[in-house]
Amino acid sequence: MAESERWKKGAAKMKELFGREPQPGQMQEDFLKITVENLFGDVWGRPGLELRERSMITVAALTVLARERELKVHLRGALNAGISREKINEIMIHLAHYGGWPTGVNGLRIAKEVFDEIDAKQK
Amino acid sequence: MAESERWKKGAAKMKELFGREPQPGQMQEDFLKITVENLFGDVWGRPGLELRERSMITVAALTVLARERELKVHLRGALNAGISREKINEIMIHLAHYGGWPTGVNGLRIAKEVFDEIDAKQK
Amino acid sequence: MAESERWKKGAAKMKELFGREPQPGQMQEDFLKITVENLFGDVWGRPGLELRERSMITVAALTVLARERELKVHLRGALNAGISREKINEIMIHLAHYGGWPTGVNGLRIAKEVFDEIDAKQK
Amino acid sequence: MAESERWKKGAAKMKELFGREPQPGQMQEDFLKITVENLFGDVWGRPGLELRERSMITVAALTVLARERELKVHLRGALNAGISREKINEIMIHLAHYGGWPTGVNGLRIAKEVFDEIDAKQK
Amino acid sequence: MAESERWKKGAAKMKELFGREPQPGQMQEDFLKITVENLFGDVWGRPGLELRERSMITVAALTVLARERELKVHLRGALNAGISREKINEIMIHLAHYGGWPTGVNGLRIAKEVFDEIDAKQK
Amino acid sequence: MAESERWKKGAAKMKELFGREPQPGQMQEDFLKITVENLFGDVWGRPGLELRERSMITVAALTVLARERELKVHLRGALNAGISREKINEIMIHLAHYGGWPTGVNGLRIAKEVFDEIDAKQK
Repeated sequence: MAESERWKKGAAKMKELFGREPQPGQMQEDFLKITVENLFGDVWGRPGLELRERSMITVAALTVLARERELKVHLRGALNAGISREKINEIMIHLAHYGGWPTGVNGLRIAKEVFDEIDAKQK
Repeated sequence: MAESERWKKGAAKMKELFGREPQPGQMQEDFLKITVENLFGDVWGRPGLELRERSMITVAALTVLARERELKVHLRGALNAGISREKINEIMIHLAHYGGWPTGVNGLRIAKEVFDEIDAKQK
Repeated sequence: MAESERWKKGAAKMKELFGREPQPGQMQEDFLKITVENLFGDVWGRPGLELRERSMITVAALTVLARERELKVHLRGALNAGISREKINEIMIHLAHYGGWPTGVNGLRIAKEVFDEIDAKQK
Repeated sequence: MAESERWKKGAAKMKELFGREPQPGQMQEDFLKITVENLFGDVWGRPGLELRERSMITVAALTVLARERELKVHLRGALNAGISREKINEIMIHLAHYGGWPTGVNGLRIAKEVFDEIDAKQK
Repeated sequence: MAESERWKKGAAKMKELFGREPQPGQMQEDFLKITVENLFGDVWGRPGLELRERSMITVAALTVLARERELKVHLRGALNAGISREKINEIMIHLAHYGGWPTGVNGLRIAKEVFDEIDAKQK
Repeated sequence: MAESERWKKGAAKMKELFGREPQPGQMQEDFLKITVENLFGDVWGRPGLELRERSMITVAALTVLARERELKVHLRGALNAGISREKINEIMIHLAHYGGWPTGVNGLRIAKEVFDEIDAKQK
């Protein structure tokens, strides 16, 4: 795949957020291309919001929509973007009141899983 | 209703966000009490997130959950909390990709309604 | 349309809940038949739950799913089934904590609309 | 705005589906660009599914997600793409069983509104 | 943590529903406090609905919102509150028609898991 | 259970879609009866849409509603109904834009799981 400008921009943004470039085989090939170019290149790459702000509203959206797998991925991104563990917990407590109690219970549980996985790796 | 400490704290937070104190008759009496004391006093009144951050994730949650009436209320709050119109539009464009296209279309439409109502009043 | 046993059973159940039999033209013809026979005849007509219990869980489901038009219809049914206005308000306050705050705000608003419409008619 | 290849492709696809090209002012400018280029150019413009199939699954998604405004727009698209009124009604009856009864009630109601608006215009 | 009146009230209500008091470490500390005091003390502790009614609408809400973990917890609560297994199954069959077929399939599956776990323990 | 005409019709339709008749014990007995007679006999058995079309909109609905277990079952049905793997992937890429990005990520992941399970069996 010839690397377009949009791919390069998106891949750089993914590196900034997730700490690594998109990997072939990470998802279905055509969707990976759209994810890198359209989602991360065209949208995350826009000015207008800081990376930290994009990360925070993405976490909020995934939390209230109960998208647990994607949430785990983006919680790691949020930590990379400089959002502290304390802030993440606070976001979950807050969102429990807008998405309903299970939003908070599950959000805090998943955040704890992510924190524990990171801690386990660093030992 | 004797004003408890929790009521006072919640009412002050609502004033800070919405520009006015909670009004009797604004919603069912018991739920107003819970909204002021539990939601705004106990939760919005916590440290850990800035008002602007709480406002931003609330807008994100309401947008992807398609809660249009509440979203209008909180978009006004977001403007009061210092989130610019440009940022609000950008939030909607971003969230279109996490909640689906209608999230973006409706989010931008509702934001425009709020901006237009504010502009109309100021003339 | 020859009235099947299932139609008769469903129509009687709708009469019991809504105070009147299903009306031709009330919805698309084939869907009306399925609604009367399958939903109200086969399901609402089952023993195992009292009418009042079926009404209560239906209201709960429609409230948290934000199905406002259907909720209005079923709030009238709930009143017919003997659930008081006070209980309906209490249901909404309770569900605000499982479906999120807008669930409560909207549920109470819609309940008030239904109560007001009934009161206006009785004058 | 210099018309990119992706814009041209997306605009042609929108013309094919909705009967007219995207209009400036139809939505927020940046989101219109993303809608034309990314959604209609890159995605709707892909081979792999016929226009009629893309239209049908879009209608299904919007129906069960209760996105009523967008659904109206895409029901007109579905008719343009050759999906008959009878098929649209049948889709709604079918989806009532996967998204819940209000999905069917509202889907049929909105479809009827679209059909009636078209008929009114043709008189 | 000094046990406030609200904590005591909420903890007693949780004991009544779940058969045991809230446990430290059961969830993030601050959210546990809010859950005990605000959710169970202030809301579940209100008059206006019987415990059995609150339990039933909570189960209904969690079922149609597909909140499976929380549903398991509250199905045990429902059994404690005197709702029979037969009624629980009937609730799931009923809700299949308001939340869509997967609501029923999953609701019945999860209920069976809870019943089986209880039976396995009692052997 | 005496096999009614509606049961026979529904069971035949399930055989056509899933490759086998409904099995006792597959789900709670009463709900199985309603599933066979009402859902597959009365609804899937209607003319108006081809089996392939019903399958496609069911997959679309389950995908955007994030009903993963049911989706797996219906992806196998879709393959039986003649929808190719390429079309299924394309459906997921398309729906990512209407249900949000996690819809696409999860839809493609689940589709891959189904394809891999089928391939593993055929070795």
